[in-house]
Amino acid sequence: MLQFEGANILSVDQFDADSIQRVFTIADQMIPYAHRKKRTRVLDGAILGNLFFEPSTRTRVSFGTAFNLLGGEVRETTGMESSAIAKGESLYDTARVLSSYSDIIAMRHPKAGSVAEFAEGSRVPVINGGDGTNEHPTQALLDLYTIQKELHHHQRTIDGMHICMIGDLKYGRTVHSLSKLLCLYKGVQFTLISPQELAMPAEVLSALEDAGHRFTVTDQLAGVMDADIVYQTRIQQERFASLEEAAQYRGRFRLNSEIYTRHYKPNTVIMHPLPRDSREEANELDNDLNQNPNLAIFRQADNGVLIRMALFALTLGVADKVSQYDTDVVWFSDKANY
Amino acid sequence: MLQFEGANILSVDQFDADSIQRVFTIADQMIPYAHRKKRTRVLDGAILGNLFFEPSTRTRVSFGTAFNLLGGEVRETTGMESSAIAKGESLYDTARVLSSYSDIIAMRHPKAGSVAEFAEGSRVPVINGGDGTNEHPTQALLDLYTIQKELHHHQRTIDGMHICMIGDLKYGRTVHSLSKLLCLYKGVQFTLISPQELAMPAEVLSALEDAGHRFTVTDQLAGVMDADIVYQTRIQQERFASLEEAAQYRGRFRLNSEIYTRHYKPNTVIMHPLPRDSREEANELDNDLNQNPNLAIFRQADNGVLIRMALFALTLGVADKVSQYDTDVVWFSDKANY
Amino acid sequence: MLQFEGANILSVDQFDADSIQRVFTIADQMIPYAHRKKRTRVLDGAILGNLFFEPSTRTRVSFGTAFNLLGGEVRETTGMESSAIAKGESLYDTARVLSSYSDIIAMRHPKAGSVAEFAEGSRVPVINGGDGTNEHPTQALLDLYTIQKELHHHQRTIDGMHICMIGDLKYGRTVHSLSKLLCLYKGVQFTLISPQELAMPAEVLSALEDAGHRFTVTDQLAGVMDADIVYQTRIQQERFASLEEAAQYRGRFRLNSEIYTRHYKPNTVIMHPLPRDSREEANELDNDLNQNPNLAIFRQADNGVLIRMALFALTLGVADKVSQYDTDVVWFSDKANY
Repeated sequence: MLQFEGANILSVDQFDADSIQRVFTIADQMIPYAHRKKRTRVLDGAILGNLFFEPSTRTRVSFGTAFNLLGGEVRETTGMESSAIAKGESLYDTARVLSSYSDIIAMRHPKAGSVAEFAEGSRVPVINGGDGTNEHPTQALLDLYTIQKELHHHQRTIDGMHICMIGDLKYGRTVHSLSKLLCLYKGVQFTLISPQELAMPAEVLSALEDAGHRFTVTDQLAGVMDADIVYQTRIQQERFASLEEAAQYRGRFRLNSEIYTRHYKPNTVIMHPLPRDSREEANELDNDLNQNPNLAIFRQADNGVLIRMALFALTLGVADKVSQYDTDVVWFSDKANY
Repeated sequence: MLQFEGANILSVDQFDADSIQRVFTIADQMIPYAHRKKRTRVLDGAILGNLFFEPSTRTRVSFGTAFNLLGGEVRETTGMESSAIAKGESLYDTARVLSSYSDIIAMRHPKAGSVAEFAEGSRVPVINGGDGTNEHPTQALLDLYTIQKELHHHQRTIDGMHICMIGDLKYGRTVHSLSKLLCLYKGVQFTLISPQELAMPAEVLSALEDAGHRFTVTDQLAGVMDADIVYQTRIQQERFASLEEAAQYRGRFRLNSEIYTRHYKPNTVIMHPLPRDSREEANELDNDLNQNPNLAIFRQADNGVLIRMALFALTLGVADKVSQYDTDVVWFSDKANY
Repeated sequence: MLQFEGANILSVDQFDADSIQRVFTIADQMIPYAHRKKRTRVLDGAILGNLFFEPSTRTRVSFGTAFNLLGGEVRETTGMESSAIAKGESLYDTARVLSSYSDIIAMRHPKAGSVAEFAEGSRVPVINGGDGTNEHPTQALLDLYTIQKELHHHQRTIDGMHICMIGDLKYGRTVHSLSKLLCLYKGVQFTLISPQELAMPAEVLSALEDAGHRFTVTDQLAGVMDADIVYQTRIQQERFASLEEAAQYRGRFRLNSEIYTRHYKPNTVIMHPLPRDSREEANELDNDLNQNPNLAIFRQADNGVLIRMALFALTLGVADKVSQYDTDVVWFSDKANY
């Protein structure tokens, strides 16, 4: 099992099945705090350095809120550091200096590998909040956690489930990382639906094969899918060689109420990494599903706070002390009812 | 009376006279905390989502400080969210996701109606910090609170007072909202001084009439005004059809020490929503009034913190618990002397 | 001695030798908090207004972290205030308004003199975080503190030391301020190495003379320097009249392991105000010195937090109360080992 205390969380490759369950167990314990049933001060006085060298409002605020919910403070940096980078400072130097200003760092950076490079110079644990096309481990963990929770609700498990991934499976960082994590489970069936030009990369398919999973690759959403989960992602027109090519797929990977009813079982769980494009011409997930109880996309985003709380608690070695610092929530909150 | 607990504060139209007095009573109780005579931890652990999709340093910091003064934490987002908006995310989605990261939200947005639209999707109370040309209710409340306090100092009340509004009365959001709130009071006399092109809109005048108030509309500042309050606003040259038109009004709506002495009673209270233009050529409020004790503009800005504290305390249902969480202020502060 | 409580910290000129020692004594007492051996809540509830009208990630976060480490909250403003400045607001008005939102202000601004001008209107103490080419007193204090600590390690004192300053001594704000502070000590020997075009200004040299210090001015790094400290700064090519001029100095003021060994004593302390340019073609401080124990540049940056904590504690009058509010650090930290 991953030795969490003092560790950097840089990649999904660090996780085995036990480590994942440890994160999920702690994440479950975070629910009463996120729902404002109670409050903890366990990290009162600790400082998170929230370094977002690439903008990402949701991920940034989710990390910051997770740290606040544990009682800690947040010092934030957003945007590329024009001055220091123009002056040629190395990531090593940036890390040596900025890591002395906090107890733990959450970092996003547009360049693949940069967070790991930063972690080399850091004196405190670093959690990867996304490094370009490379990794976004907290997203993969929250996706997996969502799947487990939603399936549990239907008396099902990840082992033996059927997941249908739709959209841009070639460039979609989230579906790659999630697929990797699913290789730690047994007997998962994948239906991978995408335009041929945006198909799941061969190395991911071969990892699924090695894990003993079955998969179907297709560019058609047809018939009734016996899926437990449908994981929808964005398709951008610019990914295609030509507009004609793009036009040929228009509307085929869109999910709306009518398509959902036609192709899926009544309780198939709908996921999406967000943000989703809600404009008329968008090729994504229609607003007419907003009242469908199987639409898990906002629960999925909420779970991000729980996962990040769990990772902070584990890497800072306080996972088993959280409830020792409980206090009451005295203000109005309706959160537990959502 | 407005049911504050859990409510959104979106518009001045939500307020009746009792609700306003409730806000002002709580605002008064906030003074010792703002003056650092004592400190409360009532919102210790609560999180404000301070979402400023349009920049406004003063309003943003005022909300954040108000929340800190009650003991809470602030997670902030500034600037348009280029990424998510470019990706076509709806305000509903933004609200669903971001509202799970805090206990209450203060929001500014350049588009009229957007804050109310956001509030539809939010799971926590939303306070409008200004939505384009539409509403800025906390500004209107702090203006009214300032008027009441300043008049009280001179043994006067809002009922029966004489207020002189000067400048751009056509586009000035603050004078419209303040006028609406004043319709809840009795026998107010308005002198509305502006270039003809920038006169108070007919619907505001008709509301004043319905409330039984008297008003004079003029483009001249002449004679001695028997005003209790002079509320000065900015006039921008670009508002006029031509430079000649603008030139014809140059200097007529400027307030300085000499004009104040000539046209006003010795204790007429001077207000301005700030920021004011202090450049030589500006058509506003001269620095030579800075030492005049009737210049209430900075007290007015200070009152914004009290009003925002009161609204946070009321919507989060802790207005009557604030003093139960008092602690001492142990550091140097000279604030009570300002 | 400087009366710290309630004072603005605007310039190194405010400090005499006793005041400096007072700051350094308190800075020493901050070490256990910065190293997370213990935590204090002395400023719990206090608010720092961290106003960075010019970007500077390191200085901004260092101030914010210092305040958090004392238990306080931080409200931050970064970037030029496009709106208010475009509207012509004076620094006096900005100060009146923003100072009501905090208990103390740290401010950086691109214009020389602007922080002092702001302080005139402020109702709370203001600490200068750099005002253009003018002053950056906390940098000068942390440099001096670093020198004293590093020399103490070698049983030496500032009195009687030999410091070698290299690089752009004409425009380098840090070397000017540090030189001024060193005039409060006795018998310091300066070796000032720079291209002739970037030599130390005459007024600094005359101040050194008045203080009874000796100095050598040269454009050559030659022979073995008997220096205790080498303070390296950046040289920018744009400072020269021509590229030929610049080329003539190329490589002469670079410090790397080989040059260090050839020209300096085995325990000469290496300093640099950071960020340093780590690109190949840079004319600064090579990464091959990173493992050299005399490379003090990161300890120097760390000392910035201690100095800023000390200044906050002193100006807010809590320097002698800090340890009365101690609590335990319950989370993982390895900081004391760096």
